[in-house]
Amino acid sequence: MTDSSPTWNSVTIVGVGLIGGSLAAAVKSRGIAQSVVGYGRNLERLNDAKNTGLIDVATVDPETAADSEWIIFCTPVDKIIPGIETLLPFCKPDTILTDAGSVKATICHQAATIIPDGVTFIGSHPLAGSEKNGFEHAEADLFAERVCVITPLPDTDRELVSRLKAFWEAVGSNVLTMLPEEHDAGLAETSHLPHIVAAALAAKLSDENRDLASTGFADTTRIASGLPELWTSIVTSNADEAIRQIDEYRDVLNQFRDALAKQDHDALQQLFQRAKANRDALD
Amino acid sequence: MTDSSPTWNSVTIVGVGLIGGSLAAAVKSRGIAQSVVGYGRNLERLNDAKNTGLIDVATVDPETAADSEWIIFCTPVDKIIPGIETLLPFCKPDTILTDAGSVKATICHQAATIIPDGVTFIGSHPLAGSEKNGFEHAEADLFAERVCVITPLPDTDRELVSRLKAFWEAVGSNVLTMLPEEHDAGLAETSHLPHIVAAALAAKLSDENRDLASTGFADTTRIASGLPELWTSIVTSNADEAIRQIDEYRDVLNQFRDALAKQDHDALQQLFQRAKANRDALD
Repeated sequence: MTDSSPTWNSVTIVGVGLIGGSLAAAVKSRGIAQSVVGYGRNLERLNDAKNTGLIDVATVDPETAADSEWIIFCTPVDKIIPGIETLLPFCKPDTILTDAGSVKATICHQAATIIPDGVTFIGSHPLAGSEKNGFEHAEADLFAERVCVITPLPDTDRELVSRLKAFWEAVGSNVLTMLPEEHDAGLAETSHLPHIVAAALAAKLSDENRDLASTGFADTTRIASGLPELWTSIVTSNADEAIRQIDEYRDVLNQFRDALAKQDHDALQQLFQRAKANRDALD
Repeated sequence: MTDSSPTWNSVTIVGVGLIGGSLAAAVKSRGIAQSVVGYGRNLERLNDAKNTGLIDVATVDPETAADSEWIIFCTPVDKIIPGIETLLPFCKPDTILTDAGSVKATICHQAATIIPDGVTFIGSHPLAGSEKNGFEHAEADLFAERVCVITPLPDTDRELVSRLKAFWEAVGSNVLTMLPEEHDAGLAETSHLPHIVAAALAAKLSDENRDLASTGFADTTRIASGLPELWTSIVTSNADEAIRQIDEYRDVLNQFRDALAKQDHDALQQLFQRAKANRDALD
């Protein structure tokens, strides 16, 4: 945290799981807010999180939850709009709402229709996560050196966008700003497609070949361990873009198949070379 | 290494790269052979490996290389039969040849036609590796706790099969014995298909979305960093099985696509659930 990092009185985290818990840990360890309020449906779990020191206040009361300058929805994507609707009657003017959901267009446009003047919602998506679940796996550095995409609408107050950007920078993220639709088109390729590709590979694995699956198979399918209900929500919320990506992917897969069927070593080697170049560029 | 592990005078490693170098390190660190001979085409590289202590003898002379009880071909799959042909004139009776290639049927049957009585070739495939290359990344424990498949033909001397099994167990592997064709059918699903699936995903990645690729994309495509020429050899040597796997995979991918297009949350969640169950069973 640099000297110029903003400090707030209170931040509410809605949904204290892996992402919400990690965000709470980051906010506390970096001194970004004086108090972190954890809000959810299960008071017992929230009290457990409070007892580990992850949050300062555990509450299932929407009025208590809404009494913060910042409210960050870290629930599954299909629970974000219902969560906003629950807290909204208690939000004071100047409250900023954001989220950590993996899809943005539907959420941002729905939020815009229900949020009154004075309160602001700006979408966020920190590109950090894990196939693990639960605040027990929370890491204060989960967002450090990772990209966080924020998706203001064209008419969102630029000053509030700057404050949101500063918030994510304070937890260590590199912030990219784009339209919700741009986010969803991009993430369909880099997150939703890989998830479906990995899940299809894992779903296909036959019992008799399980003993022959080694580290390569395990790495390629790691993200298929993610929670089915979470990923069902994510990909169905971005179905058109995800389907477009699957179709483009099938075309590339067919190029590999065709080269293999023709025993066209040159074509195959070029495809593998393109794959390697793209992959190596990520490291 | 247990007290009952066999000890040999000399083992020749043909091709001292990541796999060959790791095998040399395992043989030396576990005291399996008194001397490890490294054979290849590039004497300078072999001398580098010798200078690091990985091998005892560096040679480009086939006669020197053939003067061991064990000769293990750790070259790319398309170089294994040519390598055997080069060393064979110098092999003494009772020499056992094996390999570490990722495909088995073509190699084992070709070897059977060229190898004279007295000398024996039995295929091996240690399911261990890395997207890294070169003996500099060799690890003595690369094979420990990993499966090694050995693929004797039905008429291979059972005593020699036992000795090969004991060799791989001495470097720490869990040995599975199957026919070469069974190996190739199984590995097509657990290794060759994942490689093509990961490579297609990496090859498809558009430049404008690169910044949005996070750990999930990176894990799913990690194996796409493998050497293009190696993987071209592997998959073209097992093309029929690989194509069968690609076609089965496309069918599963289409099930995800269809469920998504119909917004059939139940069907999609069941597919993700099957994927997760299969993947979790590997850990």
